[in-house]
Amino acid sequence: MRIDVKQCAELLAQQDNILILTHAHPDGDTLGCGFALCRALMKMGKICAVENADEIPKKYDYLYEDIVQIKFKPDYVVAVDVATTNLLGELDGKYHIDMCIDHHSTNTEYADNLLLEDVPAACQLMLEVVKALDVELDDKIANCIYTGLTTDTGCFRYASTTAATYRAAAEMIELGADNGKINRTMFETKTKTYARLERLALDSMRFYEDERVAIITFTQEMYKLTGSNEQETEAIAPLTRQIEGVEIGITIREKADGTCKASIRTFESVNAAELAKAFGGGGHNQAAACRFDCGVKEARTNLVIKCGELLK
Amino acid sequence: MRIDVKQCAELLAQQDNILILTHAHPDGDTLGCGFALCRALMKMGKICAVENADEIPKKYDYLYEDIVQIKFKPDYVVAVDVATTNLLGELDGKYHIDMCIDHHSTNTEYADNLLLEDVPAACQLMLEVVKALDVELDDKIANCIYTGLTTDTGCFRYASTTAATYRAAAEMIELGADNGKINRTMFETKTKTYARLERLALDSMRFYEDERVAIITFTQEMYKLTGSNEQETEAIAPLTRQIEGVEIGITIREKADGTCKASIRTFESVNAAELAKAFGGGGHNQAAACRFDCGVKEARTNLVIKCGELLK
Repeated sequence: MRIDVKQCAELLAQQDNILILTHAHPDGDTLGCGFALCRALMKMGKICAVENADEIPKKYDYLYEDIVQIKFKPDYVVAVDVATTNLLGELDGKYHIDMCIDHHSTNTEYADNLLLEDVPAACQLMLEVVKALDVELDDKIANCIYTGLTTDTGCFRYASTTAATYRAAAEMIELGADNGKINRTMFETKTKTYARLERLALDSMRFYEDERVAIITFTQEMYKLTGSNEQETEAIAPLTRQIEGVEIGITIREKADGTCKASIRTFESVNAAELAKAFGGGGHNQAAACRFDCGVKEARTNLVIKCGELLK
Repeated sequence: MRIDVKQCAELLAQQDNILILTHAHPDGDTLGCGFALCRALMKMGKICAVENADEIPKKYDYLYEDIVQIKFKPDYVVAVDVATTNLLGELDGKYHIDMCIDHHSTNTEYADNLLLEDVPAACQLMLEVVKALDVELDDKIANCIYTGLTTDTGCFRYASTTAATYRAAAEMIELGADNGKINRTMFETKTKTYARLERLALDSMRFYEDERVAIITFTQEMYKLTGSNEQETEAIAPLTRQIEGVEIGITIREKADGTCKASIRTFESVNAAELAKAFGGGGHNQAAACRFDCGVKEARTNLVIKCGELLK
């Protein structure tokens, strides 16, 4: 069932012992949503917690480090920024999910569904939800919402960023969001291992289809050489698309078991989700991902062939 | 004389045949200011033009390509985003300057001066001026203002970005500013020559003072090897500061005559303008620049010694 912001807030107000699930491999938007909602519900006196399949990267500590998590049996489960249940990773199937709050056009409507596709970050929608809950917003909720706004828009850079996104950011700063520090942490801090990995990644970049496709490949060997890891590849994915003339930028990451995953970034000329879908993946128009059971070279060949078809 | 926005607009309304000067080596903020003001004054029926010492990089074409420039003898001269007259480059001394609209704390008040230091971009102040001129704002003025806002804040990233900056951006988008395209042009498009130069620059990066200082050096040889040029080094300057633990990031650019120029980027712990001032330069708290009469190696040694003093 589709619900609107008001119904969403009413349903949440009726519940207690609420568990919030974020997607696996959690990013700033799903975590910002999760902890903004958790903080708002706790302000209403409810027992509430956030659970994720994977470890939360250390840079997001400030979103939740002051929250005291209580163990409880959930009566109501809410998934945030989770388009399909398989994106919950290991949590998929563990709980019956009652509500979903999301902004992905690929959402499969697996629960009572608050879906708004016109916002570049789920946190922009979540801000409407926490406002409708009628709790007093504070700097900590503002930090959560701001984190989702800025990370899912590439720091307010992408074309999908609207006037309303900028206004939401202004409101969060007025509430005390530490925009300078958050952006520095998210966009301006490279670990030394990351800096080394980035150099190898730029060396691995190859061009195809009249240089309209650029592909970076990460191997397990590269992680060993640099002391880095797969988590640090995330920020490198957009680099492929930045070269003049490139319409499809792809990063392929080799897993420990020899299979791999591809992140796809495009401009308006190519639908990234369509390319990912050809390999069983999904995502947004300009950012999508898919998995392969084969090695990086075979995956690259298959991707280049499909890119050629889409660029015709 | 210090003037406020209202006085500034009144003075401009009284004048005709107005020449607007931007600073040398023009960037998005000085050009955004210049062409926003020029467009507004032309809408009031005035004869107006923008003049700069150096060539405008091609990526800024959209700011002015539809403006028909008329040759005229100026009766009134306005400098925008120009802290000191020597920043006018070859235009310094060519005209008597009647008015200055600026946001630099280092401004020397060389004319009737509208100065607001609390804005991260001069275009945020210029928006107030064009509003006070009481002309109808349009998408072209909005593109000019948005360009200054986004380029001088690193795409709304820097700590100096305020709620008012975000609100100004929201207004410009509602007026039709093409935020997606502008940000892509300014922040997401690397020419192939730039991508090659960036790789060499990362290779040239060296660390000093317990890795709290990072220095990238550009030589004329590097421009030859990559087919790139000094203009393309601008976007590389912030990269030094992004490495974890680095408090001062410096890029040194060798000139064709063997002398050099340094761009300094810092965090709150060090005042970049203070470091630049030690070598006769200037700028903002976290971004400044200075020139050297010596070669890159000697400049680097002198900078490292001064950095050591400031970090104590």
